Amino acid sequence: MKTLFAAAALGAGLLFASAASSDDLRATGDLGLIIERATGTALIVESTDRTVLAQVEGLGNLSHASVVYSRDERYAYVFGRDGGLSKVDMLTGKLVGRVMQAGNSIGGAISDDGKLIAVANYKPGGVNVFDADTLELISEVPAIYDEEGNQSKTIGLVDLPGRRFAFSLWDGEQTWILDYSKGLKPEVTKLTDIGVFPYDALVTGDGRHYIVGLFGEDGLAHVDLWKEPLKVERIMDGYGKGEEPLPVYKMPHLEGWAKANGMFALPAIGRHEVLFMDEREFTEVDRVAVHGQPVFAMARPDGRQIWVNFAPPHNDTIQVIDIMDRKIIKTLKPGPGVLHMEFTPRGEEVWMSVRDKNEIHVYDTTDFSLKEVLPAEKPSGIFFTSRAHQLGL
Amino acid sequence: MKTLFAAAALGAGLLFASAASSDDLRATGDLGLIIERATGTALIVESTDRTVLAQVEGLGNLSHASVVYSRDERYAYVFGRDGGLSKVDMLTGKLVGRVMQAGNSIGGAISDDGKLIAVANYKPGGVNVFDADTLELISEVPAIYDEEGNQSKTIGLVDLPGRRFAFSLWDGEQTWILDYSKGLKPEVTKLTDIGVFPYDALVTGDGRHYIVGLFGEDGLAHVDLWKEPLKVERIMDGYGKGEEPLPVYKMPHLEGWAKANGMFALPAIGRHEVLFMDEREFTEVDRVAVHGQPVFAMARPDGRQIWVNFAPPHNDTIQVIDIMDRKIIKTLKPGPGVLHMEFTPRGEEVWMSVRDKNEIHVYDTTDFSLKEVLPAEKPSGIFFTSRAHQLGL
Repeated sequence: MKTLFAAAALGAGLLFASAASSDDLRATGDLGLIIERATGTALIVESTDRTVLAQVEGLGNLSHASVVYSRDERYAYVFGRDGGLSKVDMLTGKLVGRVMQAGNSIGGAISDDGKLIAVANYKPGGVNVFDADTLELISEVPAIYDEEGNQSKTIGLVDLPGRRFAFSLWDGEQTWILDYSKGLKPEVTKLTDIGVFPYDALVTGDGRHYIVGLFGEDGLAHVDLWKEPLKVERIMDGYGKGEEPLPVYKMPHLEGWAKANGMFALPAIGRHEVLFMDEREFTEVDRVAVHGQPVFAMARPDGRQIWVNFAPPHNDTIQVIDIMDRKIIKTLKPGPGVLHMEFTPRGEEVWMSVRDKNEIHVYDTTDFSLKEVLPAEKPSGIFFTSRAHQLGL
Repeated sequence: MKTLFAAAALGAGLLFASAASSDDLRATGDLGLIIERATGTALIVESTDRTVLAQVEGLGNLSHASVVYSRDERYAYVFGRDGGLSKVDMLTGKLVGRVMQAGNSIGGAISDDGKLIAVANYKPGGVNVFDADTLELISEVPAIYDEEGNQSKTIGLVDLPGRRFAFSLWDGEQTWILDYSKGLKPEVTKLTDIGVFPYDALVTGDGRHYIVGLFGEDGLAHVDLWKEPLKVERIMDGYGKGEEPLPVYKMPHLEGWAKANGMFALPAIGRHEVLFMDEREFTEVDRVAVHGQPVFAMARPDGRQIWVNFAPPHNDTIQVIDIMDRKIIKTLKPGPGVLHMEFTPRGEEVWMSVRDKNEIHVYDTTDFSLKEVLPAEKPSGIFFTSRAHQLGL
């Protein structure tokens, strides 16, 4: 842990606290971790007074990184691009565990009971499951999808209720569900022929609908996990049909799909549009022209606003869509490299990484005023501890 | 704070920890407060290892009590029946503030930014707003509803996004919205003639729909807070028409309304039924006959299951309804006086107060096994800290 005294010079009025200060006790409900992608570090922040508490070093290659939290919000588990799984103590700012669990990984999830950490890997493929306390490897699931024993890259790993996980096979064109409810040897359910090149997936906040983005097709795959027997259906088929797609500069993230007002808002691949899909019928109900190719379309926790960021060369801009009439109600220009946004748990503020300015911006979501600027080194993903309490992350 | 050494004798295998133990640091994401109504005390519990950490004394009359949390999950604010507002430090187990703010109160709420605590009062009526840090009274809103200056009891107080609150006037038959976004002098919006004897209200988890139970009428009042100008509409009108209602032993709580699978589940007043209402049309889509007169109908966080408890003489029983086909899939008999349930944030367990056995039961929601029994003195409401991150509580 390195406290940010150097960085303090960058921003006036910053308060720095640490676990060694006069009040040793600190709650964890307002904490967050901000990935600094270039330096393999992360900032621990708190959102009540909007300050940086500590910097954590030694997290490896964070060019693509995601974070989940222990159920008590004490520990962050950081999934790095290099296959590293790091465990950070949010109260001491210390790296308390780290394993190189694969050659290349794309994300992970924590079981609903907080006991299991699952990681999806590109190399060698498959999914590894670790003990959340010790980071001991306790289950390996090779993603072998054909008779020759070829193993697939895995993507779109999410937790499901009942100590289960779902993920998909990029090469294998399958979705698998792992059920650890009866112990550490999972029951595996395999759904085949889901579509060409599943590249990311999400599960809805109720753990019911698993939806897979397909890079090789103009549509999505959908599994209703509440309907037995499980089957894959195509949805939004041909949603770009008859139009010339734009070049794709950045894969849209499905995890950021917003559900609000009976609709999902989702970034269209290779288009300057946000799509709105009915949450019951999975049919398109609206599409909104936006400033660039959307990367994340994220709902404020109450669902009233959808905040959208964009791929280069439009990644200096944020647009806000009102869910009621799908009109753009605000365009902000935080600066170059707006990579990620995270709402405070009840949505009164949104935190934003402005990578190329080395800044975190905090906006009020009621009047859109800029409430705080914090220094950060090439910040990317922002993850608040309230994620500990959410399904499907 | 009194640690529970006496109570330890009641339950084998309990672990007792406190802030004074070897590891002084503790996260707050898995903590909760359980009201002990007869003794004016509350237990601080943690749901990871399922233990009691401390007992807090001096909370006054808790015959009707509710709890909200500071945004960092450090402090619990307890609203007692006697008009007392108590502030409890969840990390030290100490009562750190208490004000007698009215003669008789029915509940409260915390603003989305965590700065304001609002309390709804029966005597003298109206709403008081306190500074969350100091418990200083900073705004008084008398609920005067006629030209004679009569003041109403207030009920159904909830927080709304943008530093706002909504509540209703039992005597005045009105709903008011207080907007503190511009400072401590609120803008007040008044909706009149909402119906006879509003006795409780809820706002949906997205902060959009404010729904008021009417004790004097066979229907509900509804305000869509996203549609300007605001107006009150009647919904579920005459849902008990043509049938003889049963005597009402206990007011059904509206806060426990469950939203799942596109429906709200709600306890029917004076009937042995749970009603299911379409979340878009606000029309009845199903009703399920249950074991008694329901008090709370609560959705597991993923919405797949609805857990129902009952008024006397059926309050020894719990029933679980599957949201997909609205069939009762489980009947449990925890024992006499099942007063309240609270799900762990991701729903893998449910905690239950069994008052007349002086026990807390913890059930697994996947296989319905009883995982833990903890001793408690006449327990009633259970409130986990994850509520800090939710709207409309």
